[in-house]
Amino acid sequence: MASYVHGYSEREAKRLEDQSNTLDEILHNDSIWEPGNVILEAGCGTGAQTKIIALKNPLCKFVSIDISEESINKAREAALLLGISNVEFRQADIFKLPYEDGIFDHIFICFVIEHLPDYKAAIAELKRVLKLNGTITIVEGDHGSAYFSPESRDAYLAIQCQVELQRRNGGDANIGRKLYPILKEAGFDCIRNSPRMVYADESNPDLVEGFTRNTFTAMIEGIRKEAISENLIDAATFNKGISDLYKTAGTGGVFCYTFFKATGIKK
Amino acid sequence: MASYVHGYSEREAKRLEDQSNTLDEILHNDSIWEPGNVILEAGCGTGAQTKIIALKNPLCKFVSIDISEESINKAREAALLLGISNVEFRQADIFKLPYEDGIFDHIFICFVIEHLPDYKAAIAELKRVLKLNGTITIVEGDHGSAYFSPESRDAYLAIQCQVELQRRNGGDANIGRKLYPILKEAGFDCIRNSPRMVYADESNPDLVEGFTRNTFTAMIEGIRKEAISENLIDAATFNKGISDLYKTAGTGGVFCYTFFKATGIKK
Repeated sequence: MASYVHGYSEREAKRLEDQSNTLDEILHNDSIWEPGNVILEAGCGTGAQTKIIALKNPLCKFVSIDISEESINKAREAALLLGISNVEFRQADIFKLPYEDGIFDHIFICFVIEHLPDYKAAIAELKRVLKLNGTITIVEGDHGSAYFSPESRDAYLAIQCQVELQRRNGGDANIGRKLYPILKEAGFDCIRNSPRMVYADESNPDLVEGFTRNTFTAMIEGIRKEAISENLIDAATFNKGISDLYKTAGTGGVFCYTFFKATGIKK
Repeated sequence: MASYVHGYSEREAKRLEDQSNTLDEILHNDSIWEPGNVILEAGCGTGAQTKIIALKNPLCKFVSIDISEESINKAREAALLLGISNVEFRQADIFKLPYEDGIFDHIFICFVIEHLPDYKAAIAELKRVLKLNGTITIVEGDHGSAYFSPESRDAYLAIQCQVELQRRNGGDANIGRKLYPILKEAGFDCIRNSPRMVYADESNPDLVEGFTRNTFTAMIEGIRKEAISENLIDAATFNKGISDLYKTAGTGGVFCYTFFKATGIKK
């Protein structure tokens, strides 16, 4: 887990910001909770999601934690600049939360468990601090949901490098589709996993630019050095794969990707 | 009272969700045209879609054609049994339609062009008989959109056999994602391609049964003989792949597939 923490690099922070700006509506149109609710956001990183959900729920109180002190400081500064006053930021470990049992109305966790080898322990700990009849929301991507036109074997292989690197770090880049069984095994009730498909073609140039080009392809491009040095792929194939991914953002190109947003109740 | 209301709305939401999560609703909730419109359904087969769209649009007139006289006869009988009286069935060739230019208000074509080596000629011919400012709707699946849990390399390889067999017959099983560029190249305007994702987990047993098990997996299972005799796969791998696909319909299983519904206007 230490080898990959969201928000560590400037580039990563920029990427996450691009992502949340273009995906606000797809991911967060229903991120609405009852006034007065106290919500724990676990693994907030530099606050890319925090600012969206905090601004959408001005009458809720958020407690946003992250393992990285540096990320928490950045998140706090960003919130300050936006005049957000309903979030308390705190450095904390998701596996050992500094909170009593059953005190939060809701748990929100986005783009985190895909990186956690022992996500089961994290979810159990989150469930501990959740009130009875409280709800959890988990949002994750799923790299196995990526397909596009023009089709390209090399682009597929480049994406698989990211899946493999994440796997070697104990994560799962294809976790989105699995959130229903994950929440079920964790003992939640009334589980729903809601797919949020991103479909980008030239009728939506902002989404092509913001998602296909600057979020997904930029992310895959960012693992070039590691993928090649770990011998997962040769440089020529990787470069061709990236070039082909950029073609899916060009004229006649199409890119599809699905995020999953799952909810459950602690009964 | 509040908890009663809460419980009621939860049940109501579940009911509405169940309803909208049947395949017919996913594909046809917006297959609605103006009263009085005359609609050409090209390649109606035995009328699987015809009966849905004809019953949803009782004040429209449908002309449903297919190249197969046998299929047309079956479609006509099925419509008769359902008391459908707003469809005229006719054996006809999609490449040489027996109609004058510009006489239809709308063209509907579902699960057809994926099988046509020269789908461009078919779409051009359909466009010929469409009125100026008339609209076209194309519905297609996309086998590259299938992913599931538990993940399985063998299941993926079994699906790829279907993709390859269709390719050898001049078709394209991954055509759904490409409908935007296809309609653009055909000269249509105001094109929109709308993904219709099927997400099936055990919270929706009807969809698991109706789609994962009896539609998708049954379809792949049906190519066993051909796939093996054409040496696309060995029997053991294929059988394991099918067995793994059935697991995605079992406890803890998840299956995802996306249909695409594209529309355009003839300007």
